[in-house]
Amino acid sequence: MVGPHPAEAAARRAVRRSVRDLAPGDLVLVACSGGADSLALAAATAFVASRDGLRAGAVVVDHGLQDGSAQVAAVAAQQCRALGLEPVEVRRARVQGPGGLEAAARHARYAVLDDVAHRAGAAAVLLGHTLDDQAESVILGLARGSGARSLAGMAAVRGTYRRPFLSLRRSDTEDVCTANGLTWWTDPTNGALAPGGAVDPPPGGADRPDGLPLRSQVRSRVLPVLEDVLGPGVAVTLARTADLLREDADLLDGLAARLLDEARVADLGTPTEEGASPGDSPPAPVVLDTRVLLSAPAALRRRALRAAAVEAGSPAGSLFASHVATLDAMITDWRGQGPAHLPGDLRALRSRGRLFLRPSGPPSNARTAPAKTPAEPAQE
Amino acid sequence: MVGPHPAEAAARRAVRRSVRDLAPGDLVLVACSGGADSLALAAATAFVASRDGLRAGAVVVDHGLQDGSAQVAAVAAQQCRALGLEPVEVRRARVQGPGGLEAAARHARYAVLDDVAHRAGAAAVLLGHTLDDQAESVILGLARGSGARSLAGMAAVRGTYRRPFLSLRRSDTEDVCTANGLTWWTDPTNGALAPGGAVDPPPGGADRPDGLPLRSQVRSRVLPVLEDVLGPGVAVTLARTADLLREDADLLDGLAARLLDEARVADLGTPTEEGASPGDSPPAPVVLDTRVLLSAPAALRRRALRAAAVEAGSPAGSLFASHVATLDAMITDWRGQGPAHLPGDLRALRSRGRLFLRPSGPPSNARTAPAKTPAEPAQE
Repeated sequence: MVGPHPAEAAARRAVRRSVRDLAPGDLVLVACSGGADSLALAAATAFVASRDGLRAGAVVVDHGLQDGSAQVAAVAAQQCRALGLEPVEVRRARVQGPGGLEAAARHARYAVLDDVAHRAGAAAVLLGHTLDDQAESVILGLARGSGARSLAGMAAVRGTYRRPFLSLRRSDTEDVCTANGLTWWTDPTNGALAPGGAVDPPPGGADRPDGLPLRSQVRSRVLPVLEDVLGPGVAVTLARTADLLREDADLLDGLAARLLDEARVADLGTPTEEGASPGDSPPAPVVLDTRVLLSAPAALRRRALRAAAVEAGSPAGSLFASHVATLDAMITDWRGQGPAHLPGDLRALRSRGRLFLRPSGPPSNARTAPAKTPAEPAQE
Repeated sequence: MVGPHPAEAAARRAVRRSVRDLAPGDLVLVACSGGADSLALAAATAFVASRDGLRAGAVVVDHGLQDGSAQVAAVAAQQCRALGLEPVEVRRARVQGPGGLEAAARHARYAVLDDVAHRAGAAAVLLGHTLDDQAESVILGLARGSGARSLAGMAAVRGTYRRPFLSLRRSDTEDVCTANGLTWWTDPTNGALAPGGAVDPPPGGADRPDGLPLRSQVRSRVLPVLEDVLGPGVAVTLARTADLLREDADLLDGLAARLLDEARVADLGTPTEEGASPGDSPPAPVVLDTRVLLSAPAALRRRALRAAAVEAGSPAGSLFASHVATLDAMITDWRGQGPAHLPGDLRALRSRGRLFLRPSGPPSNARTAPAKTPAEPAQE
């Protein structure tokens, strides 16, 4: 008797490891695009579920962005059913909204997956991202320059979502499909917009004006040159970089949260609006003791300041390293700077050894505008 | 009256910031290759030193690797003298040893710089690395996949060495040279082996077999594609990535050193050589309490294990992420594994809840070889 293809054995092991905490009868949904990665995931999940007493279904998301996408979705769904998955749902996504086509497609995709998972009572949704996707995420993260978190790639588990294949190569998933007689679909834009392939955000943000998604360009143009110059193992080292930096970022975020709590002081009246009290309107202002922050290591202070700005209402996705650097200078290089303005109409003001982060405030408070506040004399 | 060119003003500010802790009369040496970066550094340093009461000299290292290198060095030295630097020494480096031409040239260069700095009693040696060099270092670090430290680039200060220009672009240094009427030399291999340009190690290791240094390939092939795909600001974001990750790595290394101290136990006889005692022969074995390590965050445990292996005698440059992962598995995934072998003829052995790191030992101990030691039953 012949055993499974090595890639198939690896795929099954990966899925089994990923779902081993689930209970018999739990429902696992595979997000299937019709691409090799998610079809291989469907095959491995069908196998593992039947052996381990789980129920396994699939969701095929049709983004409707390319001619024939409905047909691609139908073929994918048909193959999922043939693998024994049940239920298999094909859902049309509404791709719209800001941030470029790629971001909109991703948003629509996750909305559909969330909805189906919720209605079906799924215990987990499996995504087919491979080591190659992870390597691309690291390169995309370089465009942000925001430190460890932007290079940390995709997590193996985030909420309901799980990524069992992060240690498999894309070519492994093709081998699994071939071994299972599955016909996969190759996206003409190089897979980045595969109908159900829930590929994570390109941290660089919007699509390139030439229309080819950023991730596809990284795949087709950047990684081949990197492999040629740095060696063929570069995808593996990039994925390992993501793993290591994710561990670092998780620890440092936790330590920074502790620092933020230590630095936090009760907001007993902000410097210009004496009548204001905490809780007047969400989100509440954040007030920090600059001495506590100054004595902390830069790596933690920077993260604590970022978390404070997000808590005070600045959208995380719009806060760049330069904003955090401006806040940091108000702690470490204080020379009586005026208030800083942050995304989300947030204002950062230092006064009497405290850093105030709060909404810029309604026009009715204009007479006590922060620009009129006398600059604090240098203390440090 | 016309002020200095903006690039020149920036270069002078950068040098002034870099040497502001020095005392009047202190000697600063510029490592000069004849390239635009180090000639611009020589010009800015001459200006700052004359205003701030420092003495400024230069060292031009001739690697003797290319035809006409002596002439390049002589022209560079002449220009340094014309700028008012004194002393200006031209020294021939002996490029030899393992690790490829690039590594050997670097080693020889620093040996010369160390020697001249020591004999001249220099308070600081200034290196001309720019933001572009830093960006290249990050890309080279990706080839290692060893986490934050390998992406942390070059430090602004390391021992006697200082890098004032890490926030300047390479093109800025060309502008400075033009403004000063300086003639710079462009390395035909794209600058990476410039005679005195003390470019830092390509973390990937050896040169490529085609002879073009790895760093040159990153400069000429990788960065242009990255800029084209991710945007023209990518060098800046790469350099910022280095800064942020260096802060992270410094903090995490410090926390890991503390963890290592907590985990360290007195070596009261190793499991197979009862007669051995600590200090018998340097380096001493390192013995660690696996429970302390197990309860620590992965990001610190990994670093502590790496530091322990280095302390026990494993050469830092030969210890890869895979070696550390093997050690880590002896803590977090203990299933009675046999001893692990690490670079530097080091052996890692777990027994009775302790991890022993020590030299593999002389052949006379073969009868008590670790492979014969009964595997410890799983404890965790």
